[in-house]
Amino acid sequence: MTEHTYAVIMAGGGGTRLWPVSRQEKPKQLLPLLGQDTLFQGTVRRLENLFSPAQIFVVTVEEQAREMRLQAPQIPPENYLIESAPRGTASVVGLAASVLYQRDKNARMAVLPADHFIRNRDLFHYLLNAAFDVAEHGYLVTLGITPTQPSTAYGYIQQGAPLEGNYKYPTYQVRNFKEKPDEQTAQKLLRTGDHSWNSGMFIWRADSILKEIDRQLPELGGALKKISAVWGTDQQAAVLHENWKELKNITVDYGVMENAERVAVLPASGLGWSDVGMWSSLFEVLLPDMNGNIATNSNLHLSYETHNTLVYGGGNDRLIVTIGVDDMVIIDGGDVLMVCKTDQSQKVKDVVEHLKKHRQDKYL
Amino acid sequence: MTEHTYAVIMAGGGGTRLWPVSRQEKPKQLLPLLGQDTLFQGTVRRLENLFSPAQIFVVTVEEQAREMRLQAPQIPPENYLIESAPRGTASVVGLAASVLYQRDKNARMAVLPADHFIRNRDLFHYLLNAAFDVAEHGYLVTLGITPTQPSTAYGYIQQGAPLEGNYKYPTYQVRNFKEKPDEQTAQKLLRTGDHSWNSGMFIWRADSILKEIDRQLPELGGALKKISAVWGTDQQAAVLHENWKELKNITVDYGVMENAERVAVLPASGLGWSDVGMWSSLFEVLLPDMNGNIATNSNLHLSYETHNTLVYGGGNDRLIVTIGVDDMVIIDGGDVLMVCKTDQSQKVKDVVEHLKKHRQDKYL
Repeated sequence: MTEHTYAVIMAGGGGTRLWPVSRQEKPKQLLPLLGQDTLFQGTVRRLENLFSPAQIFVVTVEEQAREMRLQAPQIPPENYLIESAPRGTASVVGLAASVLYQRDKNARMAVLPADHFIRNRDLFHYLLNAAFDVAEHGYLVTLGITPTQPSTAYGYIQQGAPLEGNYKYPTYQVRNFKEKPDEQTAQKLLRTGDHSWNSGMFIWRADSILKEIDRQLPELGGALKKISAVWGTDQQAAVLHENWKELKNITVDYGVMENAERVAVLPASGLGWSDVGMWSSLFEVLLPDMNGNIATNSNLHLSYETHNTLVYGGGNDRLIVTIGVDDMVIIDGGDVLMVCKTDQSQKVKDVVEHLKKHRQDKYL
Repeated sequence: MTEHTYAVIMAGGGGTRLWPVSRQEKPKQLLPLLGQDTLFQGTVRRLENLFSPAQIFVVTVEEQAREMRLQAPQIPPENYLIESAPRGTASVVGLAASVLYQRDKNARMAVLPADHFIRNRDLFHYLLNAAFDVAEHGYLVTLGITPTQPSTAYGYIQQGAPLEGNYKYPTYQVRNFKEKPDEQTAQKLLRTGDHSWNSGMFIWRADSILKEIDRQLPELGGALKKISAVWGTDQQAAVLHENWKELKNITVDYGVMENAERVAVLPASGLGWSDVGMWSSLFEVLLPDMNGNIATNSNLHLSYETHNTLVYGGGNDRLIVTIGVDDMVIIDGGDVLMVCKTDQSQKVKDVVEHLKKHRQDKYL
């Protein structure tokens, strides 16, 4: 990587799909779901040896920034870009690009969600390098994930013709982006062989993305110009706030990528990627024991005839005993205990909806 | 009932089959397993309208007596007979009989475990009355429970010929007592049609049982004479202690009943009896909702696609969520969480053994 290369971690999301552990005030990325590190810390650590801490930026909201600075103190405080309110990933990406462009007209950036998991770090580094090479030619590049099942939890990217030129890794033009499909459509997409999951990881030159924002989202483009003009001065917060409150909530995928002129995809296999989107995902990202079980606190888990079961929680000397339990997720949180059949873990969102509707805010 | 009729509640047992709720220091009978009342309180309440509190005696150990007096303050303090150490049910029965006989040569007594459940209180009263009538003729009477399944958890009583005479309820001589059988034997016993479960409930005249103790267990008989001679005096505790420590641990079933001369059984159906011997028993004694679920704290149980599941615990505003859970027992204790397939709830004893072996005393 060169001195002009930056990583931008998107970390503003709330998300309750890992309820009851993730809460409104303690979202997924700030939790040590996978061991010692939080997902955010894992994302930062994954960038080591590729970016210096000064080259890593984080876009987040005020409520989360304090905790993030504690979790990743190596990142300079001024590299935390604080949205005055969440306005979707198009704004996140735009803010980061304009701030980087303001200080470095040659800025190239990788945009990475804070709350994903990637097992194969070496391959991840290799792909980022390959993607930066493609981005050098003005492409908005996205990492696709080669599907392993007809998932309805992700958007899909259809690839077109291979990019002309000499690239390290098979790279394709993007034909189109598709929103999360239903089951039947997902199966159809899987069979085509030319669709990837949209991982939400993007690589581009700051000037390339800013040009597309100006073209497709002129309102955002205008706001960004006013903000970047005063960035680093006393007026930064006030101007950001003033311009941010008027913005529409829009994602970069549909606000920019879908109709951008030069878009490329690198379809990646073997990354060991997961968006850790629900409890059943943890079976993909943690290493089960010989019975298929995962216990975050295995010293305090006694299991009898138990298979393919996740036991999350415990601690404080609390003993968890399972007898004759198969294919379950057991989440022992402070004020909530959840016992859930693994293949029904998407129903957690129904529980969260129920609690919202009944104003049981303390559990949210 | 007459002024000479007494109930004796046997309440010394420890028992960890309902671990992790029952503990060494808080045995089953002292727990509010079935709602507001503890099993002990339920046993006392079941005797209301049949016995005045002054006619109810409790045999227990010092460690439990204090809590019992708090739970059943209506029973006079001097009616708590404290064993200096547990010496089996033969000693319990003998102590109660000799103390009662000492104050009332015409004493008749029903001996009842403190930790059982009986749904049909009216039938229970009817059977006790019928059994006292039989006992009047010098019989040691036991209530048998007509088996509903080939249980290996209970001893069995084989009935012989019907008793001659005019009795309220079908009453039989006892041919023999059998220890807990294995599965195959239990199925055989069930098919004979002449076997009842041994409920551990006995009805007799004090002089009848004392005579049998003298004949079969002369050592115990001798001790009881020394103790009852000083009962109610300053020497009571010292003499009890002195004589009790030498006694062998022996049950009334095998120490007395098996070889007693006049033994009768009333085989009872429809009592709704349970010894609440393991967690799966609670499905017999509590009333499940339309999905077959039982929650001791149903306000704080959110269930989705959950059937035939017991959720025990919660409280302190702790929410318990179950999703896609079938045929499970979930016990949320203070320092232990147990999730157990209902039909494997007998394995709790393996857990307790494991904890003992590994000296995890704090969980016992």
